[in-house]
Amino acid sequence: MSVGKERSADFVVNAAGRRVPVVVNGRSAVPFAGVGASIPHGPKHGPPIRSTADYPADGDKRSPNLREALERCGLRDGMTISTHHHLRNGDQVAVAALEAAAELGVKDLMWLPSASFPCHEPVVDLMRSGVVHHIEGSMNGPLGAYCSRGHMRGLGVLRSHGGRWQAIQDGEVHIDIAVIAAPTADAFGNADGSHGPSACGSLGFALADSIYADHVIVVTDHLVPFPCIPWQIQGNNVDFVVEVDSIGDPKKIVSGTTVVTKSPDRLLIAEYVARFVRDAGIMKDGFSFQAGAGGIALAFVGYIRQMMIDAGVKARFVRGGSSSYLVDLLNEGLTDYILDGQTFDLAGVRSIGEDPRHVATSPFTSYNYHGKGNFASMVDAVVLGATEVDVGFNANVVTHSDGMLLHGIGGWQNCLFAGCTILALPSFRDRIPVIVDEVTTLTGPGELVDVIVTERGIAVNPGRADLLAALEGSDLPIRPIEEIKAEVERLVGGPPAKPALGDEPVAVIQWVDGTVLDTVWRVPEATDSA
Amino acid sequence: MSVGKERSADFVVNAAGRRVPVVVNGRSAVPFAGVGASIPHGPKHGPPIRSTADYPADGDKRSPNLREALERCGLRDGMTISTHHHLRNGDQVAVAALEAAAELGVKDLMWLPSASFPCHEPVVDLMRSGVVHHIEGSMNGPLGAYCSRGHMRGLGVLRSHGGRWQAIQDGEVHIDIAVIAAPTADAFGNADGSHGPSACGSLGFALADSIYADHVIVVTDHLVPFPCIPWQIQGNNVDFVVEVDSIGDPKKIVSGTTVVTKSPDRLLIAEYVARFVRDAGIMKDGFSFQAGAGGIALAFVGYIRQMMIDAGVKARFVRGGSSSYLVDLLNEGLTDYILDGQTFDLAGVRSIGEDPRHVATSPFTSYNYHGKGNFASMVDAVVLGATEVDVGFNANVVTHSDGMLLHGIGGWQNCLFAGCTILALPSFRDRIPVIVDEVTTLTGPGELVDVIVTERGIAVNPGRADLLAALEGSDLPIRPIEEIKAEVERLVGGPPAKPALGDEPVAVIQWVDGTVLDTVWRVPEATDSA
Repeated sequence: MSVGKERSADFVVNAAGRRVPVVVNGRSAVPFAGVGASIPHGPKHGPPIRSTADYPADGDKRSPNLREALERCGLRDGMTISTHHHLRNGDQVAVAALEAAAELGVKDLMWLPSASFPCHEPVVDLMRSGVVHHIEGSMNGPLGAYCSRGHMRGLGVLRSHGGRWQAIQDGEVHIDIAVIAAPTADAFGNADGSHGPSACGSLGFALADSIYADHVIVVTDHLVPFPCIPWQIQGNNVDFVVEVDSIGDPKKIVSGTTVVTKSPDRLLIAEYVARFVRDAGIMKDGFSFQAGAGGIALAFVGYIRQMMIDAGVKARFVRGGSSSYLVDLLNEGLTDYILDGQTFDLAGVRSIGEDPRHVATSPFTSYNYHGKGNFASMVDAVVLGATEVDVGFNANVVTHSDGMLLHGIGGWQNCLFAGCTILALPSFRDRIPVIVDEVTTLTGPGELVDVIVTERGIAVNPGRADLLAALEGSDLPIRPIEEIKAEVERLVGGPPAKPALGDEPVAVIQWVDGTVLDTVWRVPEATDSA
Repeated sequence: MSVGKERSADFVVNAAGRRVPVVVNGRSAVPFAGVGASIPHGPKHGPPIRSTADYPADGDKRSPNLREALERCGLRDGMTISTHHHLRNGDQVAVAALEAAAELGVKDLMWLPSASFPCHEPVVDLMRSGVVHHIEGSMNGPLGAYCSRGHMRGLGVLRSHGGRWQAIQDGEVHIDIAVIAAPTADAFGNADGSHGPSACGSLGFALADSIYADHVIVVTDHLVPFPCIPWQIQGNNVDFVVEVDSIGDPKKIVSGTTVVTKSPDRLLIAEYVARFVRDAGIMKDGFSFQAGAGGIALAFVGYIRQMMIDAGVKARFVRGGSSSYLVDLLNEGLTDYILDGQTFDLAGVRSIGEDPRHVATSPFTSYNYHGKGNFASMVDAVVLGATEVDVGFNANVVTHSDGMLLHGIGGWQNCLFAGCTILALPSFRDRIPVIVDEVTTLTGPGELVDVIVTERGIAVNPGRADLLAALEGSDLPIRPIEEIKAEVERLVGGPPAKPALGDEPVAVIQWVDGTVLDTVWRVPEATDSA
């Protein structure tokens, strides 16, 4: 285990009562001050001004391979390389880029993925060999375990999708070289995700990188003559284009089809959520909702769809991650638009590529807290998950109750700003209660969580008297959260054991405004849950 | 006449041999150093970081009127207000914004339009009354005359469309408040030009303003429920939305139909241009061209269209300003795409609103010289006009031979970087020869002008030996430029008289990289040509 000197930094207790470091990876960090309490100052990051005189007049920016492109971008020790995760567990570009950097002999890189997947496990070796210093971005599976055990030389920094945009835009994190895997691109660097053999839908997670990085490399397995239309990534921000045989494994990039849960408990949860949205008066003409591609969320879409048909109600827009279930709503005329941040299955990819009502969004439009508003707060209802919630409605999505860092934040924090935020959860998993006294890692402040729906009942945040009033007389099982918690504890034999965590931080959880919301602590080897 | 102290600035002779001021409106100015010779340093402008905490969570940014919106943006003396010109001579928003500022009692504003039109004549009164200090942007008609006579308190700064993006992006000009007339918008500020009663097509000229201004106000006469799709202007950059009865006069915003020249001389010029493009080998499968909406350019499109059909050749893309003539090419399968910067007639507006192959571009993608390349240099042939050309192929588009500033630069300078730049001109106008010894105002360096086509013959720049070789054996009337010039002078009775200009600068011509290419000098009252 190698713990860098940044671990010895001082700590303060932030507004959420969490002990957080005041220095993170050498940068001073601002402790969370409350929702909406930190008002930013100063200008957005200005990337270097370039001159077309330094780029080929015919627009042909092809470079023979990633290694040469990285070299021509001036790659050197200590730089930050960013990648996106739209290819999910099929991605072959991020590891190829970091391994090309290793071949060039550089050390101490910071890797800034928009998320990482099990396919990125080779980065563990690159961290061991010193090529990669640390990761800022979600770490799950083997990367999460490596970080949780305290093996990473820097602190992990977990940001939401909107928080990643905010950090890049505000200059808190500086990208030296962005490497953008592109399912379609032209030699000028215009790129898109909606077509090509490795089509993944939107490329929105790479947009900030393309705009703010010093250097940008587009990697594609489907080069088309200029212009690549549409161009979610604009070639005017791109330095080099590298053609490769394959950017990823299409089978792992998108699901062939997304699948609704078959668990009776989870179906019940989904039905409760839909009935809640209907009975609370949220489901009305012109309303909007967001639901992801998890089993409960997909089942919710099925229930709400039928309720919309029965009531003759049409949504103005639904927010993806998109799947065939949202595409069906669009094709059936039950929504005017899909505003889509990422595309989960083939039906979604086809739709975003062909239907102008299925619109690619980006973390800027949807989630960036340091813009002039964003879409997230305009969504009437959002259905999310969590690994833990506590009786103050605070929620955790990044660690398990044993403290292991196993999930990223995704857009979860950003979505909490919806009109009605609903966490849809089984009340226990593997006999471990999900409702606890205090979450292991605070990812979302309870004041933004409105409703917790379990198979044993629905808890409404006491701060939302309006929702409680709207539901008066409903036959939904509305119950105090403490009551549901007690029932589950009786069932499984008591509250979960507190994890025995070390006193060394391994990662921090940033809030949407760039402040530090909580710390992830080292998990000693003996308590391994894996 | 009131000449500000900035007029007494020192002058230097730049690389084009032109005497230019070293200080322009209080900023130090870099003299033109040659094409591609000034390499920029430093970061792009970073607009202020904002927080969604300061914007309404429901996304409703409506403000009752322009006056209140300007007030809430903190309008004060000396600020810069920008507008766009997609509504052309039908625009009612720019003057309304400046008059609202006048009502608020502010003085000394700088107005930064992307272009001005005769409908903006009321700004003369606002300059007289001190509300507007000066204009940076094209000035034609009455505004041009006011500036040419030396009445404006600051120097006019004429930038190309790409140069305006460059100046805003590089922070050379700072926009305090952008006022964006939008044919369609939602209350969050997402806006587009392709639909609504005042539809104008693209809103690309307002894009830089929306991204880099401190404050952004969208003004619309067609408010739709969120989301306004498509959203060329993103609401995440917008502070306020103002609803008005009408943003402009639709009849003056776009032509019902654009009209080909009927002049036999100009038809001959257009035919020569098309034959040149064909015979020089430029017209081949996958080629591209740009032609505007002037009479000669439209006629050129008609000729080249027939030649493409005859030869079985298809273009990959054509660049607008779009009109029914380009739309026909698209619908007939003679081009894969229209890449469109502005939309000139109803057929163009309909097409850009409905056909995904008709793509809105912006000065960033097409023209910005301080990006990582741009589209302009990837266009195989461009057909442009000019008010004067000289025997060194230098050209003028802004002043007439009497020195009066009567035109803007538009995208003209940016287009000079095309593979083959063709100036299509009548050899004389009103008995004044167009080919001169030295242009009155240098707007484009001769090294970038490849061909000059007149009804009396075609002059090829001696620097383009490749074109001369390709045309060998052609029956086109290729002639030395001096010979055409001499013939015209014999016809009209000699070269034009040199204008008697004052020694006070009234405006500067910026090159695409922000350097100062030439100076426009005051025209004494006696020599008025108007």
